[in-house]
Amino acid sequence: VVAPPAELLAQGIDPLPSWNEGPAKQSIRAFIEGVVQEGSPNFIPVDERIAVFDNDGTLWSEQPVYFQFAFALDRLQDLAKANPALAGQEPYKSALSGDPKALAALGEKGLLQIIGLTHAGLTVAEFNAEVGDWLKTARHPRFDRPYTDLVFQPMLELLATLRASGFKTYIVSGGGVEFMSAFTEAVYGIPPEQVVGSSGKTEFVLDGDTPVLRKLPEVEFIDDGPGKPVGINRFIGRRPVFAAGNSDGDQQMLQWTTMNNGARFGLIVHHTDAVREWAYDRDSKVGRLDKALDEASRRGWLVVDMKNDWKVVYPFEKKQ
Amino acid sequence: VVAPPAELLAQGIDPLPSWNEGPAKQSIRAFIEGVVQEGSPNFIPVDERIAVFDNDGTLWSEQPVYFQFAFALDRLQDLAKANPALAGQEPYKSALSGDPKALAALGEKGLLQIIGLTHAGLTVAEFNAEVGDWLKTARHPRFDRPYTDLVFQPMLELLATLRASGFKTYIVSGGGVEFMSAFTEAVYGIPPEQVVGSSGKTEFVLDGDTPVLRKLPEVEFIDDGPGKPVGINRFIGRRPVFAAGNSDGDQQMLQWTTMNNGARFGLIVHHTDAVREWAYDRDSKVGRLDKALDEASRRGWLVVDMKNDWKVVYPFEKKQ
Ligand SMILES: [Ca+2]
Ligand SMILES: [Ca+2]
Repeated sequence: VVAPPAELLAQGIDPLPSWNEGPAKQSIRAFIEGVVQEGSPNFIPVDERIAVFDNDGTLWSEQPVYFQFAFALDRLQDLAKANPALAGQEPYKSALSGDPKALAALGEKGLLQIIGLTHAGLTVAEFNAEVGDWLKTARHPRFDRPYTDLVFQPMLELLATLRASGFKTYIVSGGGVEFMSAFTEAVYGIPPEQVVGSSGKTEFVLDGDTPVLRKLPEVEFIDDGPGKPVGINRFIGRRPVFAAGNSDGDQQMLQWTTMNNGARFGLIVHHTDAVREWAYDRDSKVGRLDKALDEASRRGWLVVDMKNDWKVVYPFEKKQ
Repeated sequence: VVAPPAELLAQGIDPLPSWNEGPAKQSIRAFIEGVVQEGSPNFIPVDERIAVFDNDGTLWSEQPVYFQFAFALDRLQDLAKANPALAGQEPYKSALSGDPKALAALGEKGLLQIIGLTHAGLTVAEFNAEVGDWLKTARHPRFDRPYTDLVFQPMLELLATLRASGFKTYIVSGGGVEFMSAFTEAVYGIPPEQVVGSSGKTEFVLDGDTPVLRKLPEVEFIDDGPGKPVGINRFIGRRPVFAAGNSDGDQQMLQWTTMNNGARFGLIVHHTDAVREWAYDRDSKVGRLDKALDEASRRGWLVVDMKNDWKVVYPFEKKQ
C-alpha cells in the first residue's frame, strides 16, 4: 500500500520521481490532490474514481510493430513449420517475409487475419500459457530485452499514485484482452477483471469432464476509436474521470471522459524521444496521433512530452 | 464491513440468520470456512475468490414474467400511446393484449423484439433514469410492492457473508446489463463493474459538445447457457470458485465453476414454495430447471429447497 501523494510529499517523498518538475507533473499532482480533498470543488467520491489507460504506446512501447503482432508473427513462423502451405498464401506470405514494407502494407484486414489464425484453435488456458512463455523468451529487436521491460516507468508511478489515491485503474486498449491479461497483473498491478480490450469469439465445450473455452477465429469486438467508450460502458458501466492515451484511437475515450461535469483529466503521451524511445505522431502507421493532438489544447488535455517531461523512460534505465 | 463467518459465530452471531439449520446451511458455512483458513486443503487466495450469481430466480423472483420484461411491457404501453399503429403489429399486439397465454406464446424471438424496441433509441443515461423511475413506481401484481422488494433475504445474507470473507461477488445474468446496473449496487451491494449480462449494441455519438452513447435495437451478446462461461471469461478473466443459479441457463456456468481442481461450490435455488414465492421447475416457461437439476447430484451441487431451507424469503417478511 502506497500513501496518497499529499502524505508522501509531506514526508519529502515524491510519488512521481521519474517525472521532471514542470507543468505536466504539476497538473497531474493538482488534479489528484483536488479529487481526494473532501470539501474541494474537485472532490470525487471513491466509487467514481475510475481511471482508464490505453496500453500500446501509453503504458509500454509499440514500435517497430505492436508487441502483440510480434507475438503473432512468432506463432505464425511456428505454424508455417507445421503447415508449409501457409508460406505460399497471403497475407501470411508477406508477414513471413520479414520485410518491413510488406508488413506495413498488410493493412488492418491482413493484421486481423494473422491475429485470427495465430490466436484461434487454442483454449483460453493454452493461449494464456503460450503468451506467458513468449513473454519470457522473446526479445525486442532494438533493446534485446523482454518486451515487458519496455513499460514506461513514469506511467507505472502514475498508476500506483492513482491507486494509492483511491482510483480503480483499468486498461482500455485495442489489444487483445486475453493477450494482455497474461501480464497486466504482474507488470502493471492491473488484474484481469480490469482489462478491457478487443476480443475474438470463444465457445464453451464440455470435453468429457473437462470444460474448456476454445478461441475461434472470428472477431467479436474491436476496442478502438468509438469502440472505447462502448467498451467502457459495457465492461465498467461507469464514466471514467481520468483517461490516458497516445493516439487517435483514444480520441473518443478522451472525449467521453473529459466532456462531462466535475474534475476530469485527459492525458496524451506524445512520443518525442527518438533517442531513448521513438519519435512519431501524425504520419505514423503505428499509433498515429493527429486529430487527438489537434483537439488536445481545445479540450485542456495534457500532452506529455516524453523527451522533456520524463526523467526516465524504462525501468531498466534506473538500474544502470 | 462485516466480520467473516467464523468470527461472527465465535461471537454468537449467525451470518446467515434467514437460513434454517440443516445440510444446506452447513455446507455453505463449511465451504467458506475452508476457503479462508490458511493451511486448509480448501484455502483459496483472496484474488481468486470470485463468486458469480445469476439474477432472475436466484437473487430475486422472476414470476409471472421476468421483471425486465414487465418493464418492457410498461414502456411498450407508453410507446403505443405515442404511436397507436404499434398496437396493430405483432408481436406488440399480443404483448399489449395482457393475455397471459398470448404473452407465453411470444417465444424468445418475440421477447427480443419487444426488448429491442422498448430499450433502443434512448441514450444509456436516459435508459438508466427510465429504469430508476420504473423501479420506484411500478408494483408487482401479486405482492403490490416495488419489484426490488422481491429479492431473496437469504441470498442477500450469502452475498454479504462471501464479501466479508474476501470474495468478489459478480452478477452473471441473462438479463440486460444496463437494466441491472440501475439497481444492483443499491439492492445487492454489487457495483456496475461487477455486473455481466446480455447487451444490445450501443454507438458513441458526439452531439455538439455532448458525447452520448445511444442504445441500438440490435442484440450484441446473450449471456445465457454456454454464453455464461464466455461472458465470465470476457468480463472477469478468471474462473470463479463459487456459482449460484436456478435454471438450465446456469448449467454451463456451474460446470465451468465446479469442474476444476480445488474447493469449488455450485448452488441451485430450487423454487419449491408456492405459498411464500412460487413452485416450478421442469415444465416452467420461465426459469426451467430440468437438465441442471438432473446433473446436480452427480456434480455435488447444492440444491437449495426454498420451502425448507429458507426461514424467510423476502426482507419484508422480517419486518411484519
Ligand atoms: Ca495506443
Ligand atoms: Ca435465472
